[in-house]
Amino acid sequence: MRNLTLSLGCSVHANYGLAGEHKSHYIPPSTVLPMHGIVTGGAGFIGSHLVDCLVHNNWDVTVIDDCRTGGTHNLQRHLDTRAITFLKKDLNDDGWQESFRSADHVFHLAADPDVKESARDPSATIRNNFTATVRVLEAAHHHGIPAIAFTSTSTVYGDAPVIPTPETYGPLAPISVYGATKLASEALIAAYCGTWGMDAQVFRFANIIGSRSNHGVCWDFIQKLRRDPGHLEILGDGRQAKSYLEVHACVDAMLHVSGKSPPGYQVFNIGSEDWVDVRSIADIVTREMGLSGVEYRFSGGARGWVGDVPRMLLSIEKVKALGWHPRIGSQESIRVAVRALLEA
Amino acid sequence: MRNLTLSLGCSVHANYGLAGEHKSHYIPPSTVLPMHGIVTGGAGFIGSHLVDCLVHNNWDVTVIDDCRTGGTHNLQRHLDTRAITFLKKDLNDDGWQESFRSADHVFHLAADPDVKESARDPSATIRNNFTATVRVLEAAHHHGIPAIAFTSTSTVYGDAPVIPTPETYGPLAPISVYGATKLASEALIAAYCGTWGMDAQVFRFANIIGSRSNHGVCWDFIQKLRRDPGHLEILGDGRQAKSYLEVHACVDAMLHVSGKSPPGYQVFNIGSEDWVDVRSIADIVTREMGLSGVEYRFSGGARGWVGDVPRMLLSIEKVKALGWHPRIGSQESIRVAVRALLEA
Repeated sequence: MRNLTLSLGCSVHANYGLAGEHKSHYIPPSTVLPMHGIVTGGAGFIGSHLVDCLVHNNWDVTVIDDCRTGGTHNLQRHLDTRAITFLKKDLNDDGWQESFRSADHVFHLAADPDVKESARDPSATIRNNFTATVRVLEAAHHHGIPAIAFTSTSTVYGDAPVIPTPETYGPLAPISVYGATKLASEALIAAYCGTWGMDAQVFRFANIIGSRSNHGVCWDFIQKLRRDPGHLEILGDGRQAKSYLEVHACVDAMLHVSGKSPPGYQVFNIGSEDWVDVRSIADIVTREMGLSGVEYRFSGGARGWVGDVPRMLLSIEKVKALGWHPRIGSQESIRVAVRALLEA
Repeated sequence: MRNLTLSLGCSVHANYGLAGEHKSHYIPPSTVLPMHGIVTGGAGFIGSHLVDCLVHNNWDVTVIDDCRTGGTHNLQRHLDTRAITFLKKDLNDDGWQESFRSADHVFHLAADPDVKESARDPSATIRNNFTATVRVLEAAHHHGIPAIAFTSTSTVYGDAPVIPTPETYGPLAPISVYGATKLASEALIAAYCGTWGMDAQVFRFANIIGSRSNHGVCWDFIQKLRRDPGHLEILGDGRQAKSYLEVHACVDAMLHVSGKSPPGYQVFNIGSEDWVDVRSIADIVTREMGLSGVEYRFSGGARGWVGDVPRMLLSIEKVKALGWHPRIGSQESIRVAVRALLEA
C-alpha cells in the first residue's frame, strides 16, 4: 500500500496573529498518487473541515453523512467542483459499504455529538455512535482497509481527578452515555486492531469550536444573545473550566498524527494546554458581539447539565512528542471561533 | 432501601487444606429481611455458584438464563426445592424485565464467555455481551434498582506491559472482541451511574476455574486427555502465564465487595496473586488424572489463539484493602478445580 506519511501532514491551518486574525493559508498539495479517504460525518462540523484539508492535499475523498446534524452546505464548493463523492447515508442502513473497496484510510467522525441529548435518548446515541462504529469496522475489515482514524472525546475520562489528564489515566468512568458510547467504540477498534492487524489513531478531543459548529457553548451563547441581547442564561455556576481548541488546529493535529503515528492501536489527546471558564467565555462572546451590560443568569450547580464534566484539561504531551502543538490557548481559540461564527 | 451490608458477605467458600481438599462449609444465613437479587446467567458456571451462595444467605433469587452455555442442571436442587425463580429467557428478547420490579441488586453475569469464539462471530459477542448489558441497564434504571454487579474481565487490559496490572492501568486496549464488549459494557454502566445515580461494582476477573465450567484450559485438557490419554495438544508454546482463581473464592470476593464497596461506580480486579504457565497446568491435570508419559504437542507461538493475552496477572491491592484476599495461589487453585471437574 502507499505510504501515508508521504501525502499526509495537514498543510491547512489557521494563521493566528497576535490580534487573533483568522486566515487560512495553504501550501501546495503533495505530488504523490492520490490517497482515497473515507470521511464519515464529512458534512458535519469537524468532518467538513477535514474534507477541505484532504481535498486540498489531492486526496480522493468519499463523504458518508446522513445530514442529520451536518449538511451539504458545509461541502458546497467541493460538490460544485465534483471534488468529492458524496453518499447521503445513515451508517446503520446499508448501501455505503462498497465505497470502502478502494479506500486507504477511514476517518470515522459520524456521531450524535450532543452530550446533553445522550441522557434523553440513550438508545439513539448508542445506535448512532457505537453500533455505527461496529458497522464501519466491519466494512473496513471486510475490504482490508489498513487504517482508521476515530474521533473520541475527553468525556471518556469522566470526572478525572488527575488534571491535566493523560491518555494513561484509569479507570475510565464516563459519566454520560455519549462518553460511554465513544469509549465503547474505542474498545471495539482496539479489538479489531488486536485481532486483525488494523492500525488506528483514536483522538480524544477537548472541546472543539469554530465555524460550521451548531452546538456547544460558543454557538449557544451567540444564539441566545441574538434573541435577547440584554440577558444571557448560563448553564451551571459559570465556573466550569475546560480546554478549547479551534477546529482548524484540530484537523491539523489529526492529519499530523495520522501521518506520524506508530503502527497498531494508538490513543492521542488533542486540545489546548490551558482552560477557560464559562463566565470568561460569556465575556468574550458579548465583547465580540459588541454588547455591554448583558445580565448573566446562572442556572446554578457545579455542572451545566446531567453528564457535564465541570473541569477538563487534557495532557497533550504524547501528541507534542510527535511534533504537533497548539499555536494559541483556549481563550484565543474561543475568540477566533466566535468571530468565525459571527461572520458566517 | 434495605442495607446490603447487613445481609451480604458471602459465607460459602471452599476450605482449602494443605493437601488441597475441597469442602464447602456454610455459616448460618443472616436473619434480616430477605433481599431480592437478580442473577443473569445464573444457570452458568460462575452464576450458579453465586446463586448457591445467595440462596444459602436467605436471598430471594430470580435467575434469568437462556441456557445456551449454562443449564438448569447447575441449579437443580434450587429448582427442586423451589428456592429460586427461574426465567429461561434471552436478554435480547423481552419478557424478563418485569422481574426487576422488586429487586434490590442485579448481578449481571450473562455473556458469551469464550474469547476465542469472539473472533469468529463478533456480532454475536457484541449482541450477547454488550447489547444485553444495555438492556439490563435500561430495565434496572426503569425499575429504580439501586445497584448492579457486573462481571468483567482481565482481557479489557489487552497486552498490558504493567504487571501486576492495577485497575488504574490505561489506556485500555483489549485485543479481543470479547474483551472489547466487556469494556464497552463497563463504559455504559459507568454512564448510568454518572447520569442516574446507580451504584455499580465491576469485577475484572482473572481466569476463574472450577466445577460446572465447560470451557477454559482445565476443562479443555481434561476433555482431550479423556479422548486420548497418550497425547495432549497445547495451544501456543505453553509458556503463557496467567493468574487463576477457584470459583468459590471468586463468588466470595464478589459478595464481600458488593457488601463493602463505596457508593458510585467502582472497579475491582479479582484474581490470585501469582500466575502459572500452561505447561505447568498440563502437568497438574495429567498428575490429577493419574496419567504418566503423556506427550505434549505444542501448536506453537506466544499466543494460544487470536486475541489470547500471553501474560496476565492482576494487582488485587484494591480488593485486599476491603478485607478480601485469596487463600490459595494459582497452582493450588488449578489443582482444586481439576479435582472438582474430575469428580463431576
